[in-house]
Amino acid sequence: MGKTVRKLQVVSPVPADIDIANSVEPLHISEIAKELNLSPQHYDPYGKYKAKVLLSVLDELQGSEDGYYVVVGGITPTPLGEGKSTTTVGLCQALGAFLDKKVVTCLRQPSQGPTFGIKGGAAGGGYSQVIPMDEFNLHLTGDIHAITAANNLLAAAIDTRIFHESTQTDKGLFNRLCPPDKEGKRSFSNIMFRRLTKLGISKARPEELTPQEIKKFARLDFDPSSITWRRVMDINDRFLRKITVGQGPEEKGMVRETGFDISVASEIMAVLALTTSLADMRERLGKMVVGNSKAGDPITADDLGVGGALTVLMKDAINPTLMQTLEGTPVLVHAGPFANISHGNSSIVADKIALKLVGRGGFVVTEAGFGADIGTEKFMNIKCRYSGLTPQCAVIVATIRALKMHGGGPEVVAGKPLDHAYLTENVALVEAGCVNLARHISNTKAYGVNVVVAVNKFATDSEVELNAVKAAALSAGAFDAVICTHHAHGGKGAVDLGVAVQRACENIAQPLKFLYPLDMSIKEKIEAIAKSYGASGVEYSEEAEKQIGMYTKQGFGSLPICMAKTQYSFSHNAAAKGAPSGFVLPIRDVRASIGAGFIYPLVGTMSTMPGLPTRPCFYDIDLDTTTGRVIGLS
Amino acid sequence: MGKTVRKLQVVSPVPADIDIANSVEPLHISEIAKELNLSPQHYDPYGKYKAKVLLSVLDELQGSEDGYYVVVGGITPTPLGEGKSTTTVGLCQALGAFLDKKVVTCLRQPSQGPTFGIKGGAAGGGYSQVIPMDEFNLHLTGDIHAITAANNLLAAAIDTRIFHESTQTDKGLFNRLCPPDKEGKRSFSNIMFRRLTKLGISKARPEELTPQEIKKFARLDFDPSSITWRRVMDINDRFLRKITVGQGPEEKGMVRETGFDISVASEIMAVLALTTSLADMRERLGKMVVGNSKAGDPITADDLGVGGALTVLMKDAINPTLMQTLEGTPVLVHAGPFANISHGNSSIVADKIALKLVGRGGFVVTEAGFGADIGTEKFMNIKCRYSGLTPQCAVIVATIRALKMHGGGPEVVAGKPLDHAYLTENVALVEAGCVNLARHISNTKAYGVNVVVAVNKFATDSEVELNAVKAAALSAGAFDAVICTHHAHGGKGAVDLGVAVQRACENIAQPLKFLYPLDMSIKEKIEAIAKSYGASGVEYSEEAEKQIGMYTKQGFGSLPICMAKTQYSFSHNAAAKGAPSGFVLPIRDVRASIGAGFIYPLVGTMSTMPGLPTRPCFYDIDLDTTTGRVIGLS
Repeated sequence: MGKTVRKLQVVSPVPADIDIANSVEPLHISEIAKELNLSPQHYDPYGKYKAKVLLSVLDELQGSEDGYYVVVGGITPTPLGEGKSTTTVGLCQALGAFLDKKVVTCLRQPSQGPTFGIKGGAAGGGYSQVIPMDEFNLHLTGDIHAITAANNLLAAAIDTRIFHESTQTDKGLFNRLCPPDKEGKRSFSNIMFRRLTKLGISKARPEELTPQEIKKFARLDFDPSSITWRRVMDINDRFLRKITVGQGPEEKGMVRETGFDISVASEIMAVLALTTSLADMRERLGKMVVGNSKAGDPITADDLGVGGALTVLMKDAINPTLMQTLEGTPVLVHAGPFANISHGNSSIVADKIALKLVGRGGFVVTEAGFGADIGTEKFMNIKCRYSGLTPQCAVIVATIRALKMHGGGPEVVAGKPLDHAYLTENVALVEAGCVNLARHISNTKAYGVNVVVAVNKFATDSEVELNAVKAAALSAGAFDAVICTHHAHGGKGAVDLGVAVQRACENIAQPLKFLYPLDMSIKEKIEAIAKSYGASGVEYSEEAEKQIGMYTKQGFGSLPICMAKTQYSFSHNAAAKGAPSGFVLPIRDVRASIGAGFIYPLVGTMSTMPGLPTRPCFYDIDLDTTTGRVIGLS
Repeated sequence: MGKTVRKLQVVSPVPADIDIANSVEPLHISEIAKELNLSPQHYDPYGKYKAKVLLSVLDELQGSEDGYYVVVGGITPTPLGEGKSTTTVGLCQALGAFLDKKVVTCLRQPSQGPTFGIKGGAAGGGYSQVIPMDEFNLHLTGDIHAITAANNLLAAAIDTRIFHESTQTDKGLFNRLCPPDKEGKRSFSNIMFRRLTKLGISKARPEELTPQEIKKFARLDFDPSSITWRRVMDINDRFLRKITVGQGPEEKGMVRETGFDISVASEIMAVLALTTSLADMRERLGKMVVGNSKAGDPITADDLGVGGALTVLMKDAINPTLMQTLEGTPVLVHAGPFANISHGNSSIVADKIALKLVGRGGFVVTEAGFGADIGTEKFMNIKCRYSGLTPQCAVIVATIRALKMHGGGPEVVAGKPLDHAYLTENVALVEAGCVNLARHISNTKAYGVNVVVAVNKFATDSEVELNAVKAAALSAGAFDAVICTHHAHGGKGAVDLGVAVQRACENIAQPLKFLYPLDMSIKEKIEAIAKSYGASGVEYSEEAEKQIGMYTKQGFGSLPICMAKTQYSFSHNAAAKGAPSGFVLPIRDVRASIGAGFIYPLVGTMSTMPGLPTRPCFYDIDLDTTTGRVIGLS
């Protein structure tokens, strides 16, 4: 057991999350780093309790062996959430503080929007939390702010370029893009050679271009209706969902309808999570497609001359942030892409660094967003495909509450009291609901990993109910199924889970089996995923057909697929609980994140900008100006 | 001379700023901190070369004496800038590295917008720079990002509140604002008592309110046309200057015209610069007025329930960032409000901390934005009024180039070659232009400080020209006038300036004389400032008259005045060079930053959102992905 491990004094009933978080004095981050054998040149401290671990660690540890790689997914959740983050943290507290293992927890950075809106923070809960909880939920080390800045610089570059192209001749535009220096000589900047190469122009000096080449080079010729790049903000601001820009008199009537998404929905967030190095990030940011020319050719950030500047804005964001759990085990927080329109997984670089730091016999536990149908599927087919990493074990978190809902229990609505059925024993409902768990188990097992079911126990759950879930899980092919009480007891409450995960990891050694090969057509790939949902077929809108045709023609057909689907059902219909089958999955539209590296079909309408309720969380949040402490954060 | 001082090897001709900045390996920030007697609990490191100095230092050093306080202003500049930041840094390098004085440079944090737009960075220039230059110009320690987040959370709160008020009854609104807890009991959150007090309702429980009180409390009843709060972004995005929001179907047609400013124009930036403690910042943020009710009452951030959350978002931003000059002297970078619609000065807390850290006989040199008519005037009448600090010396930076322009030289245009008149000797032009310098000297002297003129020497300046300026400065009442070559030589080139500033500080001891007392009417205060510009009178638009009446009626008449005027002339007409007089100053409109604490009359049209040119700076900016170094930043 490491020196940094801290003994928790648990109290019953479990106090509020913020009170537990504030009751523990965090260790200085240099102590957490030391325990991981990180020397001071391997990390940059950000205050006393956070540090950015530098990517150079990966180069230095290139020869070391990786630890075991565990992904945590969940069954189809209720709107209240089933404690996936809490279980991820609790499992690591058990492995590190009770089972004497090297362990790193890899978590997503939460958006600030929900922190001030409805949901509150995302640092786990009860006695399984990341601390300091306020620093985790607020600016952290500025990565999301960097994404916002980069995303919006690119957006400004698009509208301004369209404006300048509209008011200038080819020649005038070209002369401004390649202005003469003091000696009157013109030259291309480095980034311009990327566009020249793309256009097949292999000339080194501006003077050599023909008038036709000048036109091709200088005029991006945007089709304004094709622009998919939107601005972002890390705030729940529903009035920005659809806006008209360019209404100032200086913009000469060049108005355009567009909108803002929340920052974590930015493609740049998806890039951050999927990149593997600075050089790879530079390429991905440069090749992000923002729209098409009138001739139908994709226009990229590098065509706009801004791919380098975006990389500069993101150069520190690529380093994961080291924090700690309540029991002093290390946590890497990094990236937090939306789980619906994006892949919902934390970063590849954090997982890679963590696997080297824990080394052989150690454990890296990483969380995948939403239910396993979306989160774990994308973890396997997108994240692991790009990282080349192979997980040994997948945990599936279940609650009696959610299983009862899947078995036919009344609707669960956030903010309304739970129905009686959820507060008293009802084994029949639980047993009926296990069809949902069973499908998640068999889907996940198909990737070649051992599946461990973690039942996140609530005070109202009965022994018989819990045993019913264990039996159902094992008969569906789970390697093990364990009852956990980490919310009430910290790592001590997840020791059985830790032991099961260790056994699961030690008892498997097979390559990752993807759900689909990349060389399938876009439609075949969509259909393979739809089948895993229980669908009997897929129906494409006219718009979706058109987009699939376009992406295929543009050469993007071999990218993996990132389904944008509700987390509340295997199907597109959030009300269809349990394990629905035989339905036809409708694809409303198809979009692409070329820099991040995936095509994302839209199954239904996905909101990419949340709103604020009449009484947002911020009514309770304040600063105690005497102590400097945050109060009222939930 | 301190241990941290670094000997510069200067090269002639002076290389590019980025090349000089990259040629020096910065000292670890802990060394800079140690030299200032800061112990590790006094600061939070942010990487190797930056640290946030904690406000608690002020409490600990309460009993220590302050050092000398020097403000750097300038004559009316050309569009090329006259080297005010460079002179500020050079002077400090002289004092610290050559004159063996304790010294801290206090600078504003630059906006990221211009870094990627036209202007480039703002870390000084030549051999007088703050390093690392890329960290200075980019995210720094996230303060501007925090301002953006806080500003936009407040904006979202406004539109959402109007929306929810429009769809709910008084009772429904009230019940949502004070929802029942698990036991069915309702309560007010702490922040709600601020509004109750403002409304004169001294009841402790929601149940006690009468229907009329419920209406008064729950319905802010915004007059949408009165809303002055805009959203912000730290990007040059001209297409956001005027926009329409709320066009999504869920917003039910509640569209509204509004716009974005650049983040440094946010009132929250002005608050950060003028606040003196966490408790003071909490109050200022809460009382920011965002618009009026239909009855004409001001509505504040605390009325919206969000003042506490804004403070939480700004709690780390209140700590200044420690950096270093090329010669290893310490720099505090903190706040950077727009100099036109805001006060253009760095923060009070940074100056206060610096004055304690250098102690008796040490020097704090702080820069005021724009020309002395705006920057130094606001430094004295707004910043020093709120801080209670008294400067001993004001430096006025002049260049032969700008003086020639004021003497009647041809127009100076950024990006175009300079006219012959500026490159060869022309004593007559210089002498004629000194009327501009003379008025800045006499205006500044009137505050009760000694004025030292620093002539920032260019290679093309002649001895006779330089002597003419010295003579003119002395005859206008300057304490001293000194030729400086810090751009070419670093601190060594500003030793004479350092000596003059030291003598100026040692030879004065009088209280600060403000230009106007606060208890004058708004119009009298505006007229006092206009007189200092040389105006014979002031002319108010109908709108300005209306606003002055409203602010006076609302009880804001005793705030100081922050003129929003061009920096390119003493008058409102940028083309009127030299020392114009007898003109009538037109006041187009009058606005207020109640939280920051000033009324700002608009003299002409001020752009609060810059644009990008056809070929922005970002075309040259990239990351060397092998070394991790930023390239192409200017």
